[in-house]
Amino acid sequence: MLKYSEHLDRMFHALADGTRRAMVERLVRSPASVSELARPFAMSMPAVVQHLKVLEDAGIVTSEKVGRVRTVQLAPDALGVGGDWIGRQRLPAERQLDRLGDVLAGHTTTEGEPT
Amino acid sequence: MLKYSEHLDRMFHALADGTRRAMVERLVRSPASVSELARPFAMSMPAVVQHLKVLEDAGIVTSEKVGRVRTVQLAPDALGVGGDWIGRQRLPAERQLDRLGDVLAGHTTTEGEPT
Repeated sequence: MLKYSEHLDRMFHALADGTRRAMVERLVRSPASVSELARPFAMSMPAVVQHLKVLEDAGIVTSEKVGRVRTVQLAPDALGVGGDWIGRQRLPAERQLDRLGDVLAGHTTTEGEPT
Repeated sequence: MLKYSEHLDRMFHALADGTRRAMVERLVRSPASVSELARPFAMSMPAVVQHLKVLEDAGIVTSEKVGRVRTVQLAPDALGVGGDWIGRQRLPAERQLDRLGDVLAGHTTTEGEPT
């Protein structure tokens, strides 16, 4: 189990790279084999595997090898820790706007419904 | 103006460090001088200034020097680009749960109001 601060360090480090973000964006659609994940990138297989290791060490993806094929998938709530941290760093004025937005959204949802 | 992908690279890199995250958490409360920001950390002033430069290059903070005092503040919607990117990387099942949550929140907000 990673310490919270180290988990955030690794998650944000993992996301600070366009190739790794593109892999996450691909995995949102469905799990994929390592070679499928590698296909869009002009890089060696060891480089791809290294990127996947950074994502796995950050708790963002998990992988499983069946026979000769390793399949990678997003972990459940893969980016939750990082998203929650960012969500808390809001200026007081922004928080008030959020609450106002929530209230307005509540009204709209209910008023727009068929009766 | 930073390219979107480079903006994300810099923002996540800036957040992949506990000292810089602690500076952001402090600045959510109010703007602060560089020496106030430095106080909780056992590090040299040049090291503090370097951390602030990483945050400023990522568009997370802005600073202004008046006389001999440099004051640092969070940029408006400082982490919005990173938070929005993370918010989009949700598995289809998680998105459905979000929508259900929104609908339920809408009901609760309205039903709980005085009439």
